[in-house]
Amino acid sequence: MSQQQNAISPRRNEDFPEWYQQVVKAADLAENSDVRGCMVIKPWGYGIWEAMQRGLDGLFKATGHKNAYFPLFIPLSYMAKEAEHVDGFAKECAVVTHHRLEADGKGGLRPAPSAELTEPLIVRPTSETIIGATYAKWVQSYRDLPILINQWANVVRWEMRPRVFLRTAEFLWQEGHTAHETSAEAVAETEQMLRVYEQFAREWLALPVFTGEKSAGERFPGAVNTLCIEAMVQDRKAIQAGTSHFLGQNFAKASGIQFVSRENKQEFAWTTSWGVSTRLIGTVIMAHADDDGVILPPRVAPSQIVIVPVAPKPETRDAVFAACEDLAAKLRASTYGGEAIRVEVDKRDIGGGEKSWGWIKRGVPVRVEIGPRDLEKGTVAVARRDRGHKEKTFPTAAEFVAGIGATLQEIHDTLLARATTLRDTHTVKINSKEEFIAFFTPKNKDKAEIHGGFAFAHWDGTPEVEAEIKEALKVTIRCIPFDSPEEDGQCVWSGRPSRKRVLFAKSY
Amino acid sequence: MSQQQNAISPRRNEDFPEWYQQVVKAADLAENSDVRGCMVIKPWGYGIWEAMQRGLDGLFKATGHKNAYFPLFIPLSYMAKEAEHVDGFAKECAVVTHHRLEADGKGGLRPAPSAELTEPLIVRPTSETIIGATYAKWVQSYRDLPILINQWANVVRWEMRPRVFLRTAEFLWQEGHTAHETSAEAVAETEQMLRVYEQFAREWLALPVFTGEKSAGERFPGAVNTLCIEAMVQDRKAIQAGTSHFLGQNFAKASGIQFVSRENKQEFAWTTSWGVSTRLIGTVIMAHADDDGVILPPRVAPSQIVIVPVAPKPETRDAVFAACEDLAAKLRASTYGGEAIRVEVDKRDIGGGEKSWGWIKRGVPVRVEIGPRDLEKGTVAVARRDRGHKEKTFPTAAEFVAGIGATLQEIHDTLLARATTLRDTHTVKINSKEEFIAFFTPKNKDKAEIHGGFAFAHWDGTPEVEAEIKEALKVTIRCIPFDSPEEDGQCVWSGRPSRKRVLFAKSY
Repeated sequence: MSQQQNAISPRRNEDFPEWYQQVVKAADLAENSDVRGCMVIKPWGYGIWEAMQRGLDGLFKATGHKNAYFPLFIPLSYMAKEAEHVDGFAKECAVVTHHRLEADGKGGLRPAPSAELTEPLIVRPTSETIIGATYAKWVQSYRDLPILINQWANVVRWEMRPRVFLRTAEFLWQEGHTAHETSAEAVAETEQMLRVYEQFAREWLALPVFTGEKSAGERFPGAVNTLCIEAMVQDRKAIQAGTSHFLGQNFAKASGIQFVSRENKQEFAWTTSWGVSTRLIGTVIMAHADDDGVILPPRVAPSQIVIVPVAPKPETRDAVFAACEDLAAKLRASTYGGEAIRVEVDKRDIGGGEKSWGWIKRGVPVRVEIGPRDLEKGTVAVARRDRGHKEKTFPTAAEFVAGIGATLQEIHDTLLARATTLRDTHTVKINSKEEFIAFFTPKNKDKAEIHGGFAFAHWDGTPEVEAEIKEALKVTIRCIPFDSPEEDGQCVWSGRPSRKRVLFAKSY
Repeated sequence: MSQQQNAISPRRNEDFPEWYQQVVKAADLAENSDVRGCMVIKPWGYGIWEAMQRGLDGLFKATGHKNAYFPLFIPLSYMAKEAEHVDGFAKECAVVTHHRLEADGKGGLRPAPSAELTEPLIVRPTSETIIGATYAKWVQSYRDLPILINQWANVVRWEMRPRVFLRTAEFLWQEGHTAHETSAEAVAETEQMLRVYEQFAREWLALPVFTGEKSAGERFPGAVNTLCIEAMVQDRKAIQAGTSHFLGQNFAKASGIQFVSRENKQEFAWTTSWGVSTRLIGTVIMAHADDDGVILPPRVAPSQIVIVPVAPKPETRDAVFAACEDLAAKLRASTYGGEAIRVEVDKRDIGGGEKSWGWIKRGVPVRVEIGPRDLEKGTVAVARRDRGHKEKTFPTAAEFVAGIGATLQEIHDTLLARATTLRDTHTVKINSKEEFIAFFTPKNKDKAEIHGGFAFAHWDGTPEVEAEIKEALKVTIRCIPFDSPEEDGQCVWSGRPSRKRVLFAKSY
């Protein structure tokens, strides 16, 4: 590979969507399956998800939640219980209608007509209804509350235009479902879990996010309030990276979650739900990757360090391999972020260049090479994925091991700082309609849709204006930020009075 | 609760199947959902599964496997590719035929006729076919082999007589799927994974198992050979606790997993698959639980120790609670089996008896009580679930912490020894048909089906005899044990010559 070229073609600024697909492919993260809209998550991609799961699971448990598991299937009638929820989700679902196959007489198989289900089953698009029906059985008294449960599961939402990690028919996620005695407790839970997501984005994914609540039009179907974290990725679009819903008593009423209160009255519980999904993998790629491939924040890298033996001559091979394994053992005995450091020794019998580029494309944070001359000098050659791939340092093995925690943290901090700079550079306050339209109009239509970015602007609070803006510019209200100050202003679109700026952006 | 009574009614020797259901209920492990055959795994039950997952996942990774994720859905046509596999699995499957719902005009919903799928999708009963189709794309050359992948997933097999954990329509499992260059490598993989399961059963579940291969009639559909581990539970029936299949080239041929060999020839890969499921939770219950409820082997207990503050008077409450938290912190800083010890402090405001019995029924290995008098003396009151519930020791807190690893290991060893004694006591060599029939005839028909147990007997190797025995006694060949010596003998049923004893039992 020549010095001028990059590993990924096209480059980000040439064709961002195609660049994304090529990065996913080059890093061996995932691929489309033969089943429309369903992806195969390959080991390197799944390793990222495993690291995310460990991190999130620890945060959920530290806030008092336990995991459980609820059925994949939801009876059709459950979907019809919560009216708004039906409108939001009922449309595109996988519907199970038969429970047996039989020979079709032509050498193939068909659903057996004699095995048609009396009531069709829906493959869960989300589990509020089935979990609500279960909680209704568990809850009798205020003493049974709160219920603080999370589920790691697969869900299915039929997608017409699937895109790996970002929008797939089947995806993996976690869904927290809690039930509380009071509205205030449920609201506090909703806010707590949003803060957990914000912390996870910052400390694991190296992503700064805006937090706030959704406008009514963007809320989860059936929710009273939807809170969200919104990240900017490198084409300056927003991606909703996590949501936390205050469901009021809507689902409790639909499912019959009732309890005898401290005042000896029959009341409906207050519930919440909150989730993040494998979409986070896509978010991390679009936020941090460059024209050479993925760059992984260390805490979610399946391997944080790869050690490559450089042993062209058979006579030095054993010594070099031994030094690599010795270094790996020492690194594995060290920790970063509370976990043993994850190290791979790449002994594959392929060329050194191919090997290095493979790890660059996969985004492994630190690459180490050890050859016969390093052994003589007692040093190792270290390259960091957040720096140029020719930029190397040559510490002694002991120095490298001693400093590895700090090095990984530096890489994390660099990624977070870059993402923060990107976001802050392209987040502006806008006060006029003209400016607003110009900001969201792509600057380089021939090449890629690089528009302005995030705009804080006044909005008159009407769904009509929200819809007009979406129609005209494909721009939506990403959130009404928590920390947006009250101020007098005029709606950027209608000119009507407004008391608060909201965050507008194009989004995934 | 009086001294004479037990927490679970009926007792094991009164009605084993009903005792099992009551143990599951009393321990809050799981319950049936409104969706026929699908269970809800409650937090305590799911906690056992999480511990099992961690243990198995560590063993899989230590043997070079990585996790990945494949689609939930399998196109109908894939199921028809491997003929034997079709026969074995195609019958009872959940079939997805539509991808959208619409209003039915009566206030409800129905599958939209306009959204019928061209090809129905099957919810995976197992993933050989869909994973095979994927591997076919990944493998071109012998350099792409082996592929060593495991998947943690949910699967669905429609069940007419579901029983929680043991036989449910949806269950959770892991399925390893590997592809190799040679038959010998694939056979070695199949055997290695069986040894992993054997080790896991012994070291995590405190279960001794027989290992061997299945007879042709009991093989996985499409497999060349199925290896299994078989455990005895307390009604002396066998339960298949894990299987490892050598698939030969059957699935590779059906899916087209082909590669260019070292000799530059086009060849089909040799594949394996292996799995264990949430059925292991049912196995652990039936193997170790007693008439007071579950007894958990420490390594799979969601909490290994529960600390109960005994503070009837408000003035000592704070000091007692503080001592409990202090002890918990010290225990959590200790490790057992390579993991931090899992401790719960039960501060619920309910009676001490109810609390203790709750933990006995849930099977937590060690219960500790701390009251004001313990504080004065500097001691703690310790009860072990493997011993009588009135049997307590009173070490100092420091002694207790220092010895906790040894205590947990002792509990594990006790459970393993008991299960081994149970099995060995009821495993016999049988040489005559009369004896064989008597052995497998229930002794106390009015109460419960307690029959003999496991029988090593000669079998002439014919499927006819195997079928006759199954028909006559509901007894099957559990395995042809690896370590059964060659010897001259006569089939226990037909009297024809045989060279090897096989393991007969009734089974789940």
